[in-house]
Amino acid sequence: MITTNKPYAVGIDIGGTNTVFGIVDARGSVISSSSIKTQKYLDVNDYVEDLHKELSKLIEEVGGADKIKGIGVGAPNGNYYTGNIEFAPNLPWKGVIPLAEMLTKKFGITVNLTNDANAAAIGEMTYGAARGMKDFIMITLGTGVGSGIVINGQLVYGHDGFAGELGHVIVRKPNGRACGCGRNGCLEAYASATGVARTAREFLEIRKEASLLRQIPNNEITSKDVYEAAVAGDALAQEIFQYTGTILGEAFADFVAFSAPEAIILFGGLSRAGDMIMDPIVDAMERNILNIWKGKIKVIFSELKESDAAVLGASALGWEAK
Amino acid sequence: MITTNKPYAVGIDIGGTNTVFGIVDARGSVISSSSIKTQKYLDVNDYVEDLHKELSKLIEEVGGADKIKGIGVGAPNGNYYTGNIEFAPNLPWKGVIPLAEMLTKKFGITVNLTNDANAAAIGEMTYGAARGMKDFIMITLGTGVGSGIVINGQLVYGHDGFAGELGHVIVRKPNGRACGCGRNGCLEAYASATGVARTAREFLEIRKEASLLRQIPNNEITSKDVYEAAVAGDALAQEIFQYTGTILGEAFADFVAFSAPEAIILFGGLSRAGDMIMDPIVDAMERNILNIWKGKIKVIFSELKESDAAVLGASALGWEAK
Repeated sequence: MITTNKPYAVGIDIGGTNTVFGIVDARGSVISSSSIKTQKYLDVNDYVEDLHKELSKLIEEVGGADKIKGIGVGAPNGNYYTGNIEFAPNLPWKGVIPLAEMLTKKFGITVNLTNDANAAAIGEMTYGAARGMKDFIMITLGTGVGSGIVINGQLVYGHDGFAGELGHVIVRKPNGRACGCGRNGCLEAYASATGVARTAREFLEIRKEASLLRQIPNNEITSKDVYEAAVAGDALAQEIFQYTGTILGEAFADFVAFSAPEAIILFGGLSRAGDMIMDPIVDAMERNILNIWKGKIKVIFSELKESDAAVLGASALGWEAK
Repeated sequence: MITTNKPYAVGIDIGGTNTVFGIVDARGSVISSSSIKTQKYLDVNDYVEDLHKELSKLIEEVGGADKIKGIGVGAPNGNYYTGNIEFAPNLPWKGVIPLAEMLTKKFGITVNLTNDANAAAIGEMTYGAARGMKDFIMITLGTGVGSGIVINGQLVYGHDGFAGELGHVIVRKPNGRACGCGRNGCLEAYASATGVARTAREFLEIRKEASLLRQIPNNEITSKDVYEAAVAGDALAQEIFQYTGTILGEAFADFVAFSAPEAIILFGGLSRAGDMIMDPIVDAMERNILNIWKGKIKVIFSELKESDAAVLGASALGWEAK
């Protein structure tokens, strides 16, 4: 066991809906965690204030800031090089937010920040399904669709720190769905939780058959409703997963042409749908992939608990603090 | 200057149409080169026989095999890990060809082999427009469309040696053009030399206006004819480059979302079209790229002579021989 007078790191995972944070020990156990609602804070200063208040409680429980080696943050559009969140379409704060600097000042602890999906990929590589892999792609299916790409055992940050925005690859043109990023046809507009809900609304409008989903007011349907209806045997709901998985699988065939990963790892809410989403993904990927890769690329689910992966991944950046 | 009793390396660039090879000295000068027609050899044994005959002449001129440190080969679908060419859609030889092994036996010199586009990228990084860049994508526009991807200063080979097949990203679906790889809608089916000729035939059939291209029998039109007509001011020919560049630029916007390169570098026949191809590429890329990258990604032409880049790049693998 590693012994040190700073035996803990903090991991913070900022999602479009929730921010989850936790204290991680040197063995990689999340020893305490909590969360706040990201969506609630229109002003990032209020957000930092409340995050500080709630996280400080956990820090005090383990003996105070002196016991923390560093804080790692995973955030949408987080830039590893600058510590800024820049133009994140799914967060309430617009423009460039110097979050690492703001948190460092507030906590008096060094803060490292990266893309939330990159943080999850680091977590998966260290503790999960990607242990021992040098080339893989992590796809996070949450409020948005994110990705963390590992090549030669290294996270791909790109020349500017923003690489791995595979949720914003254009999968439908022309006339693709409007995306939060301001463009049309992005993978995220179809394969995110909100994308699935949108598919449900479109299907219900166009189609005439009965569905459990018709019991829910159209504009209140969530991806969770679609999941529950599909599990209950609702054919239309199952078809929504078929449609979503097909779009993902087609996109994966193109991702493989880029980096020839050993595996694509699925993480986040939508992956709870299990075979209902996995089967159409694999079918579509295999139908669309270049011959040399047919039957050779694994698509697997994350082996980490959803909250843990991102917090553990982010905390790995915390350990790197100097 | 490096002195050694093996002062030369050989670079061999295998294209769908021609195979170019040369002797390179330690300063990176191509001191002699020649070529044979790849297309002519339906049997790879005949090809190796003739390549050996022609290349041996150059090797004898510099003092024989004892003076050669190694042979590097750039070939479509060339696998760096195995030394095989595997299922190359644009070569006459089908299946798995153990070319590195065949050439090693024939010449008695160590042979390293990679993708032709990877070889060109190494050449560009060492001697050309990518000097000093750690993250860039090389796009080769020849008989096919290839790519060499550099991330963190390293060529991306992927888990199996086949990464970087960006010519086979699907850019048009459904009902995209048939591609030599057996699928439909690949970038290569539109942006290769044969893709441009095919666009010309389609445009001439659908459209009614006059064009210099109508003087050429429809099935004999080449991309060179389209280029010459466009330079002569032919509006239809210019529109063909506009169409081709737009498809490339849309694809580039997606490539940037993957690896956030500092630059995309164009290499090969089609890049001779200069602004006629560059302007629509940049327009389409900028229209389709995620906000965070607008105006920030360079698209530039290779700074190496077309034959030299691939031969120099391949020869760099020759120097690595042990």
